[in-house]
Amino acid sequence: MRELMCSCCRSAAGPGAGGGAPASGGKVDGAILADLAAASRILADQGVVDAFGHVSLRHPSAPDRFFISRSMAPALVQPDDLIEFSLDGIACGGDPRPAFLERFIHAEVYRARPDVMSVVHSHSPTIVPFGLVAAPMRAMFHNAAFLAEGVPVFDIAEKFGATDMLVGDGEKGKELARVMGRAPVVLMRAHGCVVVGPNLKTAVFRAVYTEVSARIQHQATALGGPIAALGREEGLLADAVNLKAAERAWELWAKRVGQ
Amino acid sequence: MRELMCSCCRSAAGPGAGGGAPASGGKVDGAILADLAAASRILADQGVVDAFGHVSLRHPSAPDRFFISRSMAPALVQPDDLIEFSLDGIACGGDPRPAFLERFIHAEVYRARPDVMSVVHSHSPTIVPFGLVAAPMRAMFHNAAFLAEGVPVFDIAEKFGATDMLVGDGEKGKELARVMGRAPVVLMRAHGCVVVGPNLKTAVFRAVYTEVSARIQHQATALGGPIAALGREEGLLADAVNLKAAERAWELWAKRVGQ
Amino acid sequence: MRELMCSCCRSAAGPGAGGGAPASGGKVDGAILADLAAASRILADQGVVDAFGHVSLRHPSAPDRFFISRSMAPALVQPDDLIEFSLDGIACGGDPRPAFLERFIHAEVYRARPDVMSVVHSHSPTIVPFGLVAAPMRAMFHNAAFLAEGVPVFDIAEKFGATDMLVGDGEKGKELARVMGRAPVVLMRAHGCVVVGPNLKTAVFRAVYTEVSARIQHQATALGGPIAALGREEGLLADAVNLKAAERAWELWAKRVGQ
Amino acid sequence: MRELMCSCCRSAAGPGAGGGAPASGGKVDGAILADLAAASRILADQGVVDAFGHVSLRHPSAPDRFFISRSMAPALVQPDDLIEFSLDGIACGGDPRPAFLERFIHAEVYRARPDVMSVVHSHSPTIVPFGLVAAPMRAMFHNAAFLAEGVPVFDIAEKFGATDMLVGDGEKGKELARVMGRAPVVLMRAHGCVVVGPNLKTAVFRAVYTEVSARIQHQATALGGPIAALGREEGLLADAVNLKAAERAWELWAKRVGQ
Repeated sequence: MRELMCSCCRSAAGPGAGGGAPASGGKVDGAILADLAAASRILADQGVVDAFGHVSLRHPSAPDRFFISRSMAPALVQPDDLIEFSLDGIACGGDPRPAFLERFIHAEVYRARPDVMSVVHSHSPTIVPFGLVAAPMRAMFHNAAFLAEGVPVFDIAEKFGATDMLVGDGEKGKELARVMGRAPVVLMRAHGCVVVGPNLKTAVFRAVYTEVSARIQHQATALGGPIAALGREEGLLADAVNLKAAERAWELWAKRVGQ
Repeated sequence: MRELMCSCCRSAAGPGAGGGAPASGGKVDGAILADLAAASRILADQGVVDAFGHVSLRHPSAPDRFFISRSMAPALVQPDDLIEFSLDGIACGGDPRPAFLERFIHAEVYRARPDVMSVVHSHSPTIVPFGLVAAPMRAMFHNAAFLAEGVPVFDIAEKFGATDMLVGDGEKGKELARVMGRAPVVLMRAHGCVVVGPNLKTAVFRAVYTEVSARIQHQATALGGPIAALGREEGLLADAVNLKAAERAWELWAKRVGQ
Repeated sequence: MRELMCSCCRSAAGPGAGGGAPASGGKVDGAILADLAAASRILADQGVVDAFGHVSLRHPSAPDRFFISRSMAPALVQPDDLIEFSLDGIACGGDPRPAFLERFIHAEVYRARPDVMSVVHSHSPTIVPFGLVAAPMRAMFHNAAFLAEGVPVFDIAEKFGATDMLVGDGEKGKELARVMGRAPVVLMRAHGCVVVGPNLKTAVFRAVYTEVSARIQHQATALGGPIAALGREEGLLADAVNLKAAERAWELWAKRVGQ
Repeated sequence: MRELMCSCCRSAAGPGAGGGAPASGGKVDGAILADLAAASRILADQGVVDAFGHVSLRHPSAPDRFFISRSMAPALVQPDDLIEFSLDGIACGGDPRPAFLERFIHAEVYRARPDVMSVVHSHSPTIVPFGLVAAPMRAMFHNAAFLAEGVPVFDIAEKFGATDMLVGDGEKGKELARVMGRAPVVLMRAHGCVVVGPNLKTAVFRAVYTEVSARIQHQATALGGPIAALGREEGLLADAVNLKAAERAWELWAKRVGQ
């Protein structure tokens, strides 16, 4: 998808350039990047992303840098496909490969949220409906406890009018991050959602269980009557367990994608 | 399904005939036909078609010819299975193999729509409901932006009364194309839909995301209340991006079917 | 499931018996039995049956005999697993292997319906709901046109009171066949359905598309408003095509199960 | 998930300990443990459990002992992963491997229900909704006949207020068992369910068909009107058959997971 590389990126990171491009935040352990690439394939294998969507990781020692794959289908990502970016969405060291237009989602969430180390953006069909209607997404069970504090909805049209729906520059990324606030998940009207975590495995865990909880909520809604979702305090208590449970789920999911 | 070959086709294209059959529009690159065969297998792999349904491609240099497989399950199509037809639905060069009865869908859409280079016909179970009820199909997210300009419904009974529901001759194909107008998708009551594109990959992309959007709309509807679908202007803007995104999706989907 | 073999069968067909058992209707072509075994595996592969359910074929030259597998999961059936039965549900030649308790469904439908050559019994989860509620199952699209003439519901409790819900003897089978009448499909309350055809491939085709149509009807119902299902005349016209289309679907489905 | 091992367990079963740990109930046949490990994989393969959930078996000759895997994803369990526990949830012989926090579900159900030989705990997305709303889960068809006697709902908040939703100690396990009473299934609000059986294969069968029945009930509910579910007497009669049918289903399911 070369054509989608925005002009600012192209000029900064084009082949032969690199002089004005941001420097790398420093070399990171190969195992960390292997996990990030696996996370991408896991999200595809678990049905959270399809041909689109992406997951990123903040540089472990340089908070103003993050890694994300070049523009490609998440099911195919390998460590070599990862590119390091600055929080302005510019590829470090002049990496010339095509970038995701929506890398500004990641960049601006990292800028606004020092607690966040990993970001997932997806369009899971079961999640999109909650960005289209008034019914709020709620936490249907303990594995989705992080939803109990509320899930805001970002409607790009509110500030930017009619657009192509993409968060394709820093200004839109900043507004998305503002609407997200301190939440772990923000819905995007007629588009998808963003899920964040304090580490990669938690972000993946939350992305998977946001999708599962959405499925449950569709069916619970159809049964009628009030839904006894997790309360806020239950959510806080249960989510503390999830932070550890993510490790167990990762073992299974990573094995399925050959990691 | 030899028995379904209509008599006009049989007489024109039967073995030993070929004198009165239309001539080929000329040889085309093998890679183009390989992509068309792969498109057929992709649509099966992505759940858009099952044992039935078909995809065609207009001849790249002869606008009054198109390629479509012989009558067979789309998951099994290989380049050798493709047949070239005239816009009257007659096999070029007297190709004697059984043809899809509904090739007239393709023929008449190509005749009416010079902008269309590829046509998909399918009966995806999630799409059929929208041809049966009053609720209109709408664009649930940016990947389905092409739906934002409205999705007409062709009810074959309106003009032709009780039929076998198939668009099995040119007259029915013309009426379908008339109802479709300039839209990228037309629903067929109690049957399925037709999706078109300016090239093969876009037609496949639209066929897949028409199905995904339908799934989203079923769930959004069940949640109740108004649905904040894409507006017409948002649809136009977002679809411009999709025309490029189709390439990225194709890479993944083609890999899955061994292309 | 040895324990489920009813006592009448056991005494007639036990090991060492065979004297009082009905004689075979005569040897049949191995290809025919291979197709019947494949049909069983196809129904599992297509999601119509799970660990339970069965398909049978009337003996091609002895109308009072039929073939069905021994009691086992349909996904595992091979030609050697087939047993020949009389219309009284007694194994021919004293075959001692455990039989399906519900072989009386098949036996009595063959007795009542000379037009029927093949019978499928299944509990597909998407079909069972239509046997539980007042909403009638209707023909949602041309591939399910055979449903347009109406789908009766057999409630075993109406005649037999509280039972184990199984059609485990000839009397219950006769009542089921009576409720079915001339229909191609009959629903069984809180149990499943029976689908019949004039040949094996058509019965399989109908079993698959009854399930698909049920899925479509669930979603069409949820969209609200009247459903413009196939009318009776449309159903008759479209079903004539299906009888031929079943052949094409079979090619794909058989290939998937190694036939 | 080492961090989740409760402190009492850790002290009793830590490496080098074993003095104060409960003794084993005695050696059991390897085939029995192989079946238990297979049951775990079957539940994953059938979609009843995902990365979480567990199945246990009471020791065949020591009613106050049971086997369950170490804390891990159920799809990966092999016989070597099984640990023997006392009904106080303490590992026999000082087994130092991390244990499921929720082993107290199993322990307390075995204590309260001498008729129970096997317990399954899962969070199947189709089942969770029934623990969140007022609509009771009912028996939709004969294979789920065991549901006809009613499915109670355990809301952990009723007795314990805001918690992390987990049954992580004996007191909570006892309350769960109390609410369950004599039922074969109990729902857990905003969490999942517990399914029990008089033997392993029946518990697995019930866990699978509880999930299938839930799916049917969602769709039957959406069709509207009263649902003619199995009555209590029908349930008793039909469940007697299921106890035998479980064997046939097991053959298929075990084969799928290499057992």
